Amino acid sequence: MSDNRPIGVFDSGIGGITVLKALRAHLPHENLVYLGDMARLPYGTKSADTVTAYSLQTTKHLLTHDVKMIVIACNTASSVALAPLQAALAPLPVIGVIEPGAEAAVAATKSNHIAVIATEATVRVGAYVRAIHARNPDAHVVQEPCGLFVTLAEEGWVSGDVVEATARRYLTPLFKRKAAPDTLVLACTHFPVLAKTIRKVVGRGVRLVDSAETTARAVEAALDIQGLCTKRRGRGTVKFLTTDSVDRFSRVGGIFFGEVIRPKDVELVDLQFS
Amino acid sequence: MSDNRPIGVFDSGIGGITVLKALRAHLPHENLVYLGDMARLPYGTKSADTVTAYSLQTTKHLLTHDVKMIVIACNTASSVALAPLQAALAPLPVIGVIEPGAEAAVAATKSNHIAVIATEATVRVGAYVRAIHARNPDAHVVQEPCGLFVTLAEEGWVSGDVVEATARRYLTPLFKRKAAPDTLVLACTHFPVLAKTIRKVVGRGVRLVDSAETTARAVEAALDIQGLCTKRRGRGTVKFLTTDSVDRFSRVGGIFFGEVIRPKDVELVDLQFS
Repeated sequence: MSDNRPIGVFDSGIGGITVLKALRAHLPHENLVYLGDMARLPYGTKSADTVTAYSLQTTKHLLTHDVKMIVIACNTASSVALAPLQAALAPLPVIGVIEPGAEAAVAATKSNHIAVIATEATVRVGAYVRAIHARNPDAHVVQEPCGLFVTLAEEGWVSGDVVEATARRYLTPLFKRKAAPDTLVLACTHFPVLAKTIRKVVGRGVRLVDSAETTARAVEAALDIQGLCTKRRGRGTVKFLTTDSVDRFSRVGGIFFGEVIRPKDVELVDLQFS
Repeated sequence: MSDNRPIGVFDSGIGGITVLKALRAHLPHENLVYLGDMARLPYGTKSADTVTAYSLQTTKHLLTHDVKMIVIACNTASSVALAPLQAALAPLPVIGVIEPGAEAAVAATKSNHIAVIATEATVRVGAYVRAIHARNPDAHVVQEPCGLFVTLAEEGWVSGDVVEATARRYLTPLFKRKAAPDTLVLACTHFPVLAKTIRKVVGRGVRLVDSAETTARAVEAALDIQGLCTKRRGRGTVKFLTTDSVDRFSRVGGIFFGEVIRPKDVELVDLQFS
């Protein structure tokens, strides 16, 4: 059995391409379709109802590409829309980034003190706290919404005095406590591009964890269990879709992907007016 | 003749409330309906087509409130969508913030050197440059997109080291030239809340100009010319509508409005799924 249908991946914009990149590295033979909802980003400042409605629209579009699985490459959408999407799309498998991220955090910590930085929406829902406690009830988890990091990453301001001042303002209170966390979860797909500055502020002793790698491994395991792997040998294809700003998507997306994305390889799709 | 129908005002979110506040001050007897498209903000990073489509949807909803005029309280939407809206809604008058802002800038400058800071979309379209040159062909205009200011205003970080470092990074190159501008147009409705820090960076010699006051005067003149004024005496009503996040709208919107906005006074409307 060989299932050559693509895996559908979506995010509010470009950040999720860090997850796509990890999928590409772990599962080079699989075909991938990535949809960035650039027309409505960011998701992280919006209500759970709105993010869920957007997520249902994006996945509905991915279904027209005959996908065999949905990967929610966005922490906010994973936090609020995973269960509704699984219910709406069953038996199609839907995988979010929270559980794999929590897995990575629990594996990384030695002191059981974990800090989670994320968007306002992800923090409000508390999905990481629950997912970490489900694996380790003794873990101490502190959370901090770091909304400005998203804009900084999108502006390409990944180092320099502004990012550093922002990181200090957000992170210093988290790590200036008696039992300081030894693990920091970058619980937004935008944050890994700021890792160098974040590392500078929190110090070498803290482990930085993100969901990209562990999500790719979770996808690999799910494909395997459900007999959905491709058996093709050649390198799979990657198709890019965006709801707005093809040029910006290809320019900034290429940085996140680590490969050139040409504007002509990005298809503009309309989820709202069609 | 007394026309008691409300004036419809819209913005991508909360920033436009600075314009609403000026309208309220200039035209206390008029009824006002304000719609903030919080579900899809910001507009400033999105394409002209998408912003125009959103603007058409928001005004279409305002028409259900029987408005006598539309005020686009958003620089990005005014830059790209004014002409399409005027065409779609004629003979209903539609007033944007660009022309009044350009008017204010030309009145303020003595050296004919004007700087405009705005969102990426507003800068790209160059509407301010054209509107200023239409009034004063000899004016020298420099522009700078300051996307991060929008997020800073929305986070409530209006002073402190992060805003100051951001303002220095954006503004110092604009004012470190031989013929430095003597006038700075805050060409995004979010920017006036950062005025104190901006002032600190550019110095006392530079005049800061925004569109709120001059837009209110333009609306007053248009109502007058077209015989659309109310002749009622009492204080007019203000109705608030938002496409998402009622709590955030009332909390942050109240700061921009200078009066308390209670969550129960804000109506959630759905432009996309109804």
